[in-house]
Amino acid sequence: KYGGNGVHHVSVRTHVNVDPAKLKSLRQRWSVKPSEMSKKTLNPIRAIVDGMKLTPNPEKPMIALSIGDPTVFGNLPTDDTVLQAMKEAIDSHKYNGYAPSVGYQKSREVVADFYSCPEAPLDGKDVILTSGCSQAIELAISVLCNPGDNILVPRPGFSLYKTLAVSMGIQVKHYNLLPEKSWEIDLQHLESLIDDKTACLIVNNPSNPCGSVFSREHLHKILSVASRNCIPILADEIYGDMVFPGCDFQPLAPLSSDVPILSCGGLAKRWLVPGWRMGWILIHDRNDIFGTAIREGLVKLSQRILGPCTVVQGALESILNDTPPEFYQGTISFLKSNSEICYSELSTVPGLNPVMPSGAMYIMVGIEMEHFPDFQNDVEFTERLVTEQSVFCLPATAFEYPNFFRIVVTVPEEMMIEACIRIREFCARHYRPRSQDSHELDQ
Amino acid sequence: KYGGNGVHHVSVRTHVNVDPAKLKSLRQRWSVKPSEMSKKTLNPIRAIVDGMKLTPNPEKPMIALSIGDPTVFGNLPTDDTVLQAMKEAIDSHKYNGYAPSVGYQKSREVVADFYSCPEAPLDGKDVILTSGCSQAIELAISVLCNPGDNILVPRPGFSLYKTLAVSMGIQVKHYNLLPEKSWEIDLQHLESLIDDKTACLIVNNPSNPCGSVFSREHLHKILSVASRNCIPILADEIYGDMVFPGCDFQPLAPLSSDVPILSCGGLAKRWLVPGWRMGWILIHDRNDIFGTAIREGLVKLSQRILGPCTVVQGALESILNDTPPEFYQGTISFLKSNSEICYSELSTVPGLNPVMPSGAMYIMVGIEMEHFPDFQNDVEFTERLVTEQSVFCLPATAFEYPNFFRIVVTVPEEMMIEACIRIREFCARHYRPRSQDSHELDQ
Ligand SMILES: Cc1ncc(COP(=O)(O)O)c(C=O)c1O
Ligand SMILES: Cc1ncc(COP(=O)(O)O)c(C=O)c1O
Repeated sequence: KYGGNGVHHVSVRTHVNVDPAKLKSLRQRWSVKPSEMSKKTLNPIRAIVDGMKLTPNPEKPMIALSIGDPTVFGNLPTDDTVLQAMKEAIDSHKYNGYAPSVGYQKSREVVADFYSCPEAPLDGKDVILTSGCSQAIELAISVLCNPGDNILVPRPGFSLYKTLAVSMGIQVKHYNLLPEKSWEIDLQHLESLIDDKTACLIVNNPSNPCGSVFSREHLHKILSVASRNCIPILADEIYGDMVFPGCDFQPLAPLSSDVPILSCGGLAKRWLVPGWRMGWILIHDRNDIFGTAIREGLVKLSQRILGPCTVVQGALESILNDTPPEFYQGTISFLKSNSEICYSELSTVPGLNPVMPSGAMYIMVGIEMEHFPDFQNDVEFTERLVTEQSVFCLPATAFEYPNFFRIVVTVPEEMMIEACIRIREFCARHYRPRSQDSHELDQ
Repeated sequence: KYGGNGVHHVSVRTHVNVDPAKLKSLRQRWSVKPSEMSKKTLNPIRAIVDGMKLTPNPEKPMIALSIGDPTVFGNLPTDDTVLQAMKEAIDSHKYNGYAPSVGYQKSREVVADFYSCPEAPLDGKDVILTSGCSQAIELAISVLCNPGDNILVPRPGFSLYKTLAVSMGIQVKHYNLLPEKSWEIDLQHLESLIDDKTACLIVNNPSNPCGSVFSREHLHKILSVASRNCIPILADEIYGDMVFPGCDFQPLAPLSSDVPILSCGGLAKRWLVPGWRMGWILIHDRNDIFGTAIREGLVKLSQRILGPCTVVQGALESILNDTPPEFYQGTISFLKSNSEICYSELSTVPGLNPVMPSGAMYIMVGIEMEHFPDFQNDVEFTERLVTEQSVFCLPATAFEYPNFFRIVVTVPEEMMIEACIRIREFCARHYRPRSQDSHELDQ
């Protein structure tokens, strides 16, 4: 009756009479182990934080300057336009079904128009919508790299690059950022790391954890390195346009017509809705190096989990086009003011060297460890800052950069001020001036 | 000044003076190729459909019975409670920040309570929220399997299992479903496929593409095979509870206390919002086989892209607890009625053998290819059904099951009826009765 189907013949062919005794020998007892890939998916922030003793001083309320989530304190709400756009998308009843796995064409066009510029034009086909910037980065690395390849990532830098790469068997090479040059890339060091297995250069601008913003000149130099060595770039621009007045955010792609660039971004930071998981990849390939192959690869990879939430996709048009400029300006001036408070407070604390940021939501603070003999390293320093002062900052070891810590500047101003006072107190208690002599011996 | 940081010493150590001429030799020109993994991420439905000539007959409006999206025709809207829950989540301003990567604790508890039962109790820690059931399946396979392992998947079956497995270097072994036994599993065949590299058995119930629903007895037998061979199960239960009156959906987990089960589900089908990308894994492990290792593996993997949209997470409580039973019943009685129309229409068409479903949203139809000499196979059959009758059904080759096609029964009733009339007309035109003799020769 169902004989027309060819499959049963195969069944008959492959069918083998099973001897239960023989089967038993295959697997006699349960042994279910997590895969190598899951074991290799390491989150250094979790690894470090989980290893820390984080019991706050019961006499002081906890101030967490550690969480890169601008929404936690309620002082930085998203704009009403953004919420309204979501409600309209829901009421329209148009965004409940499956979208194409790379996103609705209309939503892709909206993102393309928002980021298009004459030197780097974009249209809908150049945009892949993803589940947060995290998935944008995952897809970009997945499409560009094979196991055994290596990628170049900033140090200090956002830990996800390494987490993803290592889990995929891709080697990570860290290039240095130079705090004394406002965290510009050590270009010589960068270039020295390139070999024939280098599949991708990751540039994060503005930077987490540094809050630095690269000048146009510096970006040109980075592009020269990439161009000279024929290395495509993954530009993590999730903090794009989040730069302080007087400074300018320059996206990378418009500066080069030959280097192919996957620019990763999303709604998380600028629109202050990180939970909504809306991200994107902008494909810049004016020299046709990626060609159709990389685009098709990205489409295929996107079919694994079928794109971000359609309601947010439906809201994108209004979110990008109708959010008033005052909203963005408000966020930025708040971040700048908090950064300045933090910087000026901490730069007069003996033993600390904050580096003034120009954007994003972070400030890095160097610890002159030789003056804090009570602590072995930044992890111990920040741990004790919790137990004594109930202030929690992430040790920059989490960003592969020991002897610094990172402060998130999205907290309410009073908290920022109070935290700085407590940090000062903490440092004053533990600071040990060293004699000129011993200091020189050290050099 | 920044000398406290140890990293620059490393920089100095690894720094090498670069001879530009030598560098040139590493990579003299651009060559950016998509990764092996992206090339191995194959979507058979796309591959087959893209290769088909799908120009409808201009004289008849197109009827697509191919798309597994119940929302496309507008006749199956989600419930107002579901939309209201989303708007309330937005208005609450509580769901804009990052959730834990496995989901808010509260949302996990809500899902746990919804699916908990005395024989298979669940609490919040047993639930991982994911970006659709697709990501639930991806995480489950990723945590259980290493490259070189194999997994057992149904034939015919949902294509994503193979797409994901192959891309990860995991071998796929198909076990047969038996149409003459309402698509029950050929248990002997299933067991014959197991070897010491078998990492997981995927059971999809109710089934896409079959619309079949396994009896409790059959599920017990499946569990015996898994138990005897110590193979964990991935139960894809995304169509759970979408079964016709008179039939009963039995989740797999309550029937076994020893076989560890990852049950994958989500809002897509039962709540008719597939675009929202809300899925989950329910971890059933009463025998403590997965232990903490698999749980931790899932948590780690979830940190790659940080979970599903928080607004939908926030709405989950009301979606699961407040949606009226009439909504679910309405969907089911519509699906049943359409299935019956389709089945009774097509079962009297010479050359076709529909198999009556008991749930989900699909019906499989066998083609007696020997009676349709105009066509080589199901792909050609369905292709010509488009060009002649403007009716598109997926050839079941897309589910590894040639000489069948799949009909989606979520379309409006008039469309269902009209499509059946056209299919009958099409078959009548191409059917060739064969003499008893030649028929017997064939056997
Ligand atoms: C540099 C950088 N890239 C990407 C991300 C991830 O963004 P999303 O939340 O959209 O996944 C973050 C989040 O903190 C980040 O700091
Ligand atoms: C059997 C089966 N599992 C999983 C899925 C994926 O569901 P989701 O849209 O939630 O990713 C589908 C979708 O059609 C399906 O048919």
